[in-house]
Amino acid sequence: MTLKEDLYRRIKGLQDKMLANDCDAVMIVQNVDLYYFSGTMQNARLYVPAEGEPLLFCRKSLTRAANECPWNIIPTNNYKYIPNHIKEMGYQWPKRLGLEFDVIPVALYQSVQRLFPDSTLLDASGWIGDLRTVKSPYEIAIIKAAGKKMADAFGVVPELIRPGLSELAIAASIEKELRDHEHQGLSRMRGFNQEFFYGHFLSGSNGCMASFNDGVTAGMGMGAFYPQGPGNRVIQVGDPVYLDYVGVFDGYNVDQTRLYVIGVLAHRLRYAFQVALEIQEMLINLVKPGMMASELYDTALKIADKAGLSHNFMGYGAERVRFVGHGVGLELDERPVIAPGFNIPLEAGMVIALEPKFVLPGLGIAGIENTWLLTPNGVEKITVLPDDIATIPLA
Amino acid sequence: MTLKEDLYRRIKGLQDKMLANDCDAVMIVQNVDLYYFSGTMQNARLYVPAEGEPLLFCRKSLTRAANECPWNIIPTNNYKYIPNHIKEMGYQWPKRLGLEFDVIPVALYQSVQRLFPDSTLLDASGWIGDLRTVKSPYEIAIIKAAGKKMADAFGVVPELIRPGLSELAIAASIEKELRDHEHQGLSRMRGFNQEFFYGHFLSGSNGCMASFNDGVTAGMGMGAFYPQGPGNRVIQVGDPVYLDYVGVFDGYNVDQTRLYVIGVLAHRLRYAFQVALEIQEMLINLVKPGMMASELYDTALKIADKAGLSHNFMGYGAERVRFVGHGVGLELDERPVIAPGFNIPLEAGMVIALEPKFVLPGLGIAGIENTWLLTPNGVEKITVLPDDIATIPLA
Repeated sequence: MTLKEDLYRRIKGLQDKMLANDCDAVMIVQNVDLYYFSGTMQNARLYVPAEGEPLLFCRKSLTRAANECPWNIIPTNNYKYIPNHIKEMGYQWPKRLGLEFDVIPVALYQSVQRLFPDSTLLDASGWIGDLRTVKSPYEIAIIKAAGKKMADAFGVVPELIRPGLSELAIAASIEKELRDHEHQGLSRMRGFNQEFFYGHFLSGSNGCMASFNDGVTAGMGMGAFYPQGPGNRVIQVGDPVYLDYVGVFDGYNVDQTRLYVIGVLAHRLRYAFQVALEIQEMLINLVKPGMMASELYDTALKIADKAGLSHNFMGYGAERVRFVGHGVGLELDERPVIAPGFNIPLEAGMVIALEPKFVLPGLGIAGIENTWLLTPNGVEKITVLPDDIATIPLA
Repeated sequence: MTLKEDLYRRIKGLQDKMLANDCDAVMIVQNVDLYYFSGTMQNARLYVPAEGEPLLFCRKSLTRAANECPWNIIPTNNYKYIPNHIKEMGYQWPKRLGLEFDVIPVALYQSVQRLFPDSTLLDASGWIGDLRTVKSPYEIAIIKAAGKKMADAFGVVPELIRPGLSELAIAASIEKELRDHEHQGLSRMRGFNQEFFYGHFLSGSNGCMASFNDGVTAGMGMGAFYPQGPGNRVIQVGDPVYLDYVGVFDGYNVDQTRLYVIGVLAHRLRYAFQVALEIQEMLINLVKPGMMASELYDTALKIADKAGLSHNFMGYGAERVRFVGHGVGLELDERPVIAPGFNIPLEAGMVIALEPKFVLPGLGIAGIENTWLLTPNGVEKITVLPDDIATIPLA
């Protein structure tokens, strides 16, 4: 159950944004934002006026919403009654009404416009995205526990990776291990057309194959219909194995990448891994509240350049992505993006995944990813599993 | 790899809709629709003119798109160049341009409007939804194989359900079994805010709890942050266990619900289960190409009424849902909806899940769900696992 004081602070934060932007109200519709601002993820719409208490219009389940949400709950079987309720309850009519333009479909937007024909609809998604970057002590405690569960679950992974088994078969065992640690299964992403299922279990040089997704790696996946993650390739002696996995516990995502090798890792992959560690070390020593996310990216790129790996940094050639990290929280793809042009100052309480990685076609992927909490003085490691490459014994 | 002839027929079907609706072109953006109309699910936009061959504007991966898609592929690093390409290639300028209004976010819609400032954007999602209802022989073969894999994987389920284990622990074992049968993991849903992870493993009377989702059942789930599916409840002797699971193989969803009992099932649940079987039997004997989906719903409701179970049919009280089935395919929530008001004639080649179910508060859920192929003469069962309630031995 989300702390009441967190919900109050979040609503206040949103209202501050509204007042600064001449917005009369925001209507929250998307499930993750609903949970963030109301404590419940039921079939509901949260109407947040620029001043005063929010109203939760709820279709179902009322029982659950009432248990989880401290705001005034208005039962309804049709959201078309929302304007009437707002009028009847004496709320000011919203001349300017904010919506989550980054996620709500056009058809839903049009239905809201029909309900508020004389209102100007405007985009509130930037305000929401910014508010969600800084985590509360309550959220940080959940995220730290998630990092520990990931480390616990991954303790057995070296025993699960065996030559002769397919990527998918080993991934199935890792998924069961995570689930036994209460992984929620589904990892939520905000980006349109983005999806993620537990992790990228990538072996050998196949792992270098890029795909539609906004990440560094993808892998072959199971076919054109599911073009990322583990596939049917059988693990061989000598394979580098790259595991970019997301732990989702109590609603919160933590992001972690580790390397495994069955036998001896190719020299160039080992070199690239050392450079990735060097970048990670430099970034966590550098990062301080107040600095720009883009500075971290520039620093990482410089080290990759100096190491002669700029063409392999964060992808290969034309398929490189231009970031070295991202915020995580209730969604996997949160702000800030550690990327050029992202000039919003970092703050204590942000939780970011830093993932310096190199794609070496024909060889495989080398890199590291950890989730970090930004503190007033630097960072604290969330994904506490040791960074080292784990060597899988041959027999 | 999608058959080329299927892709040609799908594009032709969409073009027929465009010509009938005075639409000059449709731009496909959503990943599942992209796969359906182009054979690839890469980062791309498919421009389909009302006449002539489609163009696939592709950011990445070009390699994969080129392997999977027979259409002309235009590499691009920014979709803002699409209008220029269209002009330069001599395509007619789209005065009326169709988009998937049911799924694409407002921000994306606005970016398309900026690229085509003088074009009228219109909703193409209904045409796409209708085209996707009738499956080709190629799709039907995949769906039949998916039904068989579900039956194979579920063969061991009675051995996995044990008193003393939590719902989540048993669900984890079932998920591993499905994954070992090459389940793709992710089940895709089209509806906004809808999500589904493998299945609803619901035990005892807890399973009666409704939630945000547009389904009959939900269950407690793991908390307010994940309010459906298995939770931490420990299975007891005497429990009814309800497993509504989705098999996703080679991209296609099949939907199946079965009941298990540890010991003896409560009399009223057994009675409700018999009524559900009776409804299923009546519906599959009745269904024929040309009839309206709503007729099936009316028939089901009549039988439930006559059995004295109308308040428990498809949910309980105010939280009942008003349908008894739905199409399945690349997405779990496809057309047709077997519901009142859905007056589109059924056709051979449609694949529908029929799920007469009863929620009995304090007791549990009783019902059946199978996926069926509509044939010229009736139906063929896709989910071939026997319908009977499986009794779990006590020792």
